[in-house]
Amino acid sequence: MLPDPLRRVIQLLSRLPGVGEKTAQRYALKLMIDPELSHALGNELSTLMEQIRPCERCGNLAEVAEGNAVCGICLDRRRDGHLLCIVARIQDLLAVERSGAMRGRYFVLGKLLSPLDGIGPAELPLQALYERLQSESTREVILATPPSVDGEATALFLARELASKGLLVSRIASGVPHGGDLEFADQITLGRAIDGRRRVDD
Amino acid sequence: MLPDPLRRVIQLLSRLPGVGEKTAQRYALKLMIDPELSHALGNELSTLMEQIRPCERCGNLAEVAEGNAVCGICLDRRRDGHLLCIVARIQDLLAVERSGAMRGRYFVLGKLLSPLDGIGPAELPLQALYERLQSESTREVILATPPSVDGEATALFLARELASKGLLVSRIASGVPHGGDLEFADQITLGRAIDGRRRVDD
Repeated sequence: MLPDPLRRVIQLLSRLPGVGEKTAQRYALKLMIDPELSHALGNELSTLMEQIRPCERCGNLAEVAEGNAVCGICLDRRRDGHLLCIVARIQDLLAVERSGAMRGRYFVLGKLLSPLDGIGPAELPLQALYERLQSESTREVILATPPSVDGEATALFLARELASKGLLVSRIASGVPHGGDLEFADQITLGRAIDGRRRVDD
Repeated sequence: MLPDPLRRVIQLLSRLPGVGEKTAQRYALKLMIDPELSHALGNELSTLMEQIRPCERCGNLAEVAEGNAVCGICLDRRRDGHLLCIVARIQDLLAVERSGAMRGRYFVLGKLLSPLDGIGPAELPLQALYERLQSESTREVILATPPSVDGEATALFLARELASKGLLVSRIASGVPHGGDLEFADQITLGRAIDGRRRVDD
């Protein structure tokens, strides 16, 4: 019932995360009746890959300049080069940055250990990580993988690997979130909040 | 914190219906890590407007062929040309088509009367509608504008205009939806369901 070019657009849009057939159709119809938007978006997307690439050093998003792609965080000399935060995805890096609590640099793993999906240590970019640790003379590593089964497994694996290289390794705290209600916290979260308790003598 | 080209993509994506800053960022990051998708979508969107235009006769989506844009429904000779269904938006036309209950042709208004937004009868495409009625020798009109305040006002206005031209005018039924629960139906819907009751003698 729909014209072919529109059907192709709907099919592509439905590959976006959380977008089904109906939502994609809604987006496509909006793009149809707003030519300025669809043209602008079309042009931006066509050239996006020439403009942005993963940062060669940390995996963060970086604008391509003179054929190289190094992100603003890696280029920022005020950052503490001895402190490295390891995250699973770019989205997580952005979330940590928003907190304003991280003064060092980053390394994006891109994946987590997942025995069920057949992702073992060999799939992790360990070689690139070791090079990064060496080139930055890293002293401290913060493991900021998510507090999920895969995230914990990856953190545990990396903690062992990195501690054996004489690095100071820590893991972000897991517990009841700020503003959260103890009554509605799940057992594992509450268990971790109690395990991870801190003395209040300071 | 994000590279400029990506920020522009996020800003454009957040103009899609129901998409906020966070969702747009999620889509943009997916497009970043899937170059094939962003390229394909970029190319489709850049050329969408040259390929699809509103149907010159009814306002439905139509593929451009030899400089003209007439939709499949208008071109379908098996359709009953004497029966015309008036809808507000292309989405509504698609919904009516999916029902399979409409054997005639369509006319898309593109807008509804809305005194609050300053949209009066002069803003409606009445001239195009009258030409359509004449060229099709329409005998019967079904008003399928939505059962909202604006939709009802527009239906009432059109019913008067078209009845004065000797056309048979009807309005789609409003009532409790199929599978709906009377307990949770709102007062207006239930009131309409009762007002619009039909004898069950057949």
